[in-house]
Amino acid sequence: MRRTFTIGLDYGTNSVRAVVVDCRDGHVVAAEVVDYPSGHQGILLDPRDPHLARQHPGDYLFGLRESVTRALDAADAVEGFSRDRVIGIGVDTTGSTPLPVDARNVPLALDRRFESNLAAHAWLWKDHTAADEAAAITRLAAEHAPHLLAPIGGTYSSEWFWSKIWRCLKVAPEVFDAAASWVELADFVPAVLAGVDDPRQIRRGICPAGHKALYSRAWGGLPDAAFLARLDPRLAALRDRLYDEAWPADRPAGHLSAEWATTFGLREGLPIAMGAFDAHYGAVGASVRTGTLVKIIGTSTCDCAIAPATEPVGNVPGICGIVDGSIMPGYFGIEAGQSAVGDLLKWWVETVCEGDAALHGALSAEAAALEPGETGLVALDWNNGNRTILVDPRLSGLIVGQTLHTTRAHVYRALIEATAFGARAIVERLREYGVAIDRVVCCGGIAEKNPLFMQIYADVLQAPMHMAGSPQTPALGAAVAAAVAAGGAAGGYDGFEEAQRQMTSLGEVTYQPRAGAARVYDELYGLYRELHDAFGDVAGASASFGSFMKRLLALRDRVVAARESEVGSASPGDAVRA
Amino acid sequence: MRRTFTIGLDYGTNSVRAVVVDCRDGHVVAAEVVDYPSGHQGILLDPRDPHLARQHPGDYLFGLRESVTRALDAADAVEGFSRDRVIGIGVDTTGSTPLPVDARNVPLALDRRFESNLAAHAWLWKDHTAADEAAAITRLAAEHAPHLLAPIGGTYSSEWFWSKIWRCLKVAPEVFDAAASWVELADFVPAVLAGVDDPRQIRRGICPAGHKALYSRAWGGLPDAAFLARLDPRLAALRDRLYDEAWPADRPAGHLSAEWATTFGLREGLPIAMGAFDAHYGAVGASVRTGTLVKIIGTSTCDCAIAPATEPVGNVPGICGIVDGSIMPGYFGIEAGQSAVGDLLKWWVETVCEGDAALHGALSAEAAALEPGETGLVALDWNNGNRTILVDPRLSGLIVGQTLHTTRAHVYRALIEATAFGARAIVERLREYGVAIDRVVCCGGIAEKNPLFMQIYADVLQAPMHMAGSPQTPALGAAVAAAVAAGGAAGGYDGFEEAQRQMTSLGEVTYQPRAGAARVYDELYGLYRELHDAFGDVAGASASFGSFMKRLLALRDRVVAARESEVGSASPGDAVRA
Repeated sequence: MRRTFTIGLDYGTNSVRAVVVDCRDGHVVAAEVVDYPSGHQGILLDPRDPHLARQHPGDYLFGLRESVTRALDAADAVEGFSRDRVIGIGVDTTGSTPLPVDARNVPLALDRRFESNLAAHAWLWKDHTAADEAAAITRLAAEHAPHLLAPIGGTYSSEWFWSKIWRCLKVAPEVFDAAASWVELADFVPAVLAGVDDPRQIRRGICPAGHKALYSRAWGGLPDAAFLARLDPRLAALRDRLYDEAWPADRPAGHLSAEWATTFGLREGLPIAMGAFDAHYGAVGASVRTGTLVKIIGTSTCDCAIAPATEPVGNVPGICGIVDGSIMPGYFGIEAGQSAVGDLLKWWVETVCEGDAALHGALSAEAAALEPGETGLVALDWNNGNRTILVDPRLSGLIVGQTLHTTRAHVYRALIEATAFGARAIVERLREYGVAIDRVVCCGGIAEKNPLFMQIYADVLQAPMHMAGSPQTPALGAAVAAAVAAGGAAGGYDGFEEAQRQMTSLGEVTYQPRAGAARVYDELYGLYRELHDAFGDVAGASASFGSFMKRLLALRDRVVAARESEVGSASPGDAVRA
Repeated sequence: MRRTFTIGLDYGTNSVRAVVVDCRDGHVVAAEVVDYPSGHQGILLDPRDPHLARQHPGDYLFGLRESVTRALDAADAVEGFSRDRVIGIGVDTTGSTPLPVDARNVPLALDRRFESNLAAHAWLWKDHTAADEAAAITRLAAEHAPHLLAPIGGTYSSEWFWSKIWRCLKVAPEVFDAAASWVELADFVPAVLAGVDDPRQIRRGICPAGHKALYSRAWGGLPDAAFLARLDPRLAALRDRLYDEAWPADRPAGHLSAEWATTFGLREGLPIAMGAFDAHYGAVGASVRTGTLVKIIGTSTCDCAIAPATEPVGNVPGICGIVDGSIMPGYFGIEAGQSAVGDLLKWWVETVCEGDAALHGALSAEAAALEPGETGLVALDWNNGNRTILVDPRLSGLIVGQTLHTTRAHVYRALIEATAFGARAIVERLREYGVAIDRVVCCGGIAEKNPLFMQIYADVLQAPMHMAGSPQTPALGAAVAAAVAAGGAAGGYDGFEEAQRQMTSLGEVTYQPRAGAARVYDELYGLYRELHDAFGDVAGASASFGSFMKRLLALRDRVVAARESEVGSASPGDAVRA
């Protein structure tokens, strides 16, 4: 068989990575990372508004050119590689990261009139300026179109497509008015590669559409104009300039334009796979299959699973999104997540203990010497709210069981356990609704560096914990999608299953559950669930702390607001001595 | 009026202090501290048993001679002082600190046969070896003599008289059999000064008897032989070698012996005041009166209040002890306490943050810049259990409300607030049962050094917080008692009220409650009480977490016990990687 290669492009938060992958076995023959040149680590910030996070679309184009050029240059040195053996390109990106474009599909930010207007740039996934709009969408949908909320767990996020566009309409109407359309970054990059110069011609992916834009075939695509008009009539008018249909990942988004083919020294007309979010192609690259939960563990986690589309999955309460075809064609793509995992440990080590990476190591070693249950502690992992299964950002952390002998290592272990219990709540919820989970595959630095973390998860979830075989699963997954877009006749594959079988693998180390630890964790998880259900206001909980954290937060908010309104009055320090 | 002086002796945990006090105004003209020479900082420890804490009775005699001699030598240099103007001696000590003595009132530990037997030494207040015995006494009293438990809040402590003696009987029967009697340190020192050489002649004080030995006139003195026989028939037999009556503090314990008079150059026959516990004479020295709560704030706190004996105070649930005449004659002495106050802050700063005294200062300063309620946190102050009002050592700590932005200073403030809320629960319980509290007087290092702490207490308790005028309130209180024992005709006073008015004072700084802060703390205290009542298993609590901390501890205990029984099996570290 003739050796073939695909290119995977992974647009992260601070940089873009390009890999050149051997289609036979998924081996990465070349990989290059290019940092976005603008702003702070690639992010445009506003000192007056900590919620704002934008990106310069020019960085995406610069990163595209640079990363692919360098990766191909590096691949040229590899025996067996030649540019004419490249059969396709795949792209994954962060999301929801929408950007406004003009009628020729050029980002408005590249127009001199808008170059200094942050609203005309890309609204990065972690931009949280549209909190009010998200709340209003949730409220209006609950009242007038509850079907929209069912597949997204009941709450529309400030990070998502419509919240951000509506926000732009309010704060920068000149940008909104100038935009011919809005495009998710995951759809934009493939369209650029394909030379699409009319936003109406962009093939939009089911992944961004279904998970972030309230798109479903069940109700004929995007939310109807009547509903959008309740938000703002101009959003209803925008609907016609967006898209009617979104496509699963086995359909190409387009074919490589003559211009980019020349730039890269590749064949014109190469298939460009449909774009998808990093977590989703990450799941593909991490060997997701029926029964596998892929956990991408970073500051937070993104959990992905699939279920055969032949057996419809109902809406699962509290699960962020279930979209037909969003991770792999022929399956429901299921997305869940935990709001703080790495961040929770980072908070403890860096903010509270004021330590560094060395302290992470020292506390891990100390915590590893403890038995499950020995800390005497149980914690809720809600310092950043709860994404799944409670979908409530106004929840907060809790630790119980401290004595005068409780150490920082005890708390460190209890926090890892708390995130594992949070993961178990997700797994149990999925199983309850018929989604099989019999193994877990992890990606991310914590999983690679911290055996204690992995063993606790194996014991708590009572499932083997695997590592993804590649440290670059999103880019690898994009390359897999490219091989499928190319098809078997071209030296790729005719389906994702076969492509995945050949091109992805698991790491060598597997963490198996230990029976004794699992028994103790069954009990500790029971205690966790008592707190979880009581403080999370789960219907039927035996205790009534459902509003407790909210009241505590409300009190805090009032106090801070009162202080801020008292500028000029005596400082609290002055009043200490009467 | 002729100037007169008294001597106050304060037997602390690590040292003894002697002060020479001017009876006109309570001015301390001389003060000397002598460390106990034996053991670790005066405490005899057993490396095999962390619960054991004993003291060498020889240290008490050495400290008596040295401290008084040095204090008098120093006073000799003071204008207006002369030894013939000393009119009395008062003594306070730690407690319950019982020691076994022979038929001549000589401590058994001074007998060569027992010099290396720790059971023959003084059983220091913080010796916790008798936990099983305390639990058995509580259980048997609840079943057969519930009246005994009513005035002590329902639970007999491992720190107390009968628990320790029973323990000695079990583990060192040769010591128990050799003991002619057992004497509280507070009774022993006055008897030594008075030259009492027969334990049957020792005048026992109502304070140790009523608070620690289940003594009450209501049931004819100590518990009856029938009850003691349920513990052990030999304890019933011991009863006859203890005492039938205990005396309030206005009756002298005896008069200075010729031998000690010669040693000190004082007049033979000087009255020796009845001995009492340090907290109680500390309350006297801190100007306790009807309506005043004295808080002696250290690692834990001891709270003392009095109520006129003319209006009987019923048993107050959860209050450690209410004893007629125990703090001042003519009043009920009321004792309460919090298990961890200084210790809780020390735990956070030293064990968790691994800081030192400088960090205490830095966190206080940072915490002082926050408004009440601004931390968004509420904590339970139970890291060392709850002494009052729940009387439950198996409770543990809890913190709720953490975000990823919560700092160590936030937690530091929340822990101070938690102890203030614990203090408020005590004050509210006392008021509920008719004990007036309209001002608080604090003693101890934290109160002196930490204005933030004092202001939070003022705001939470909604009462002015005063400082005691003297940093040595127990020794001063003992000197006040000595002036009363001497009587007005001898240049002392005929009653405690008058003596206190002349000899004690408050500090200059007062912390007044601030209305705005008090309102916020009313709300926060409400949240604290929700947690307190739920996790403390208070009858009628709206939430059912009453057994939660116990189950968590039981799980921990089981895990640790299992590990300890598995000596020789693989270490947990070995099993981390499967």
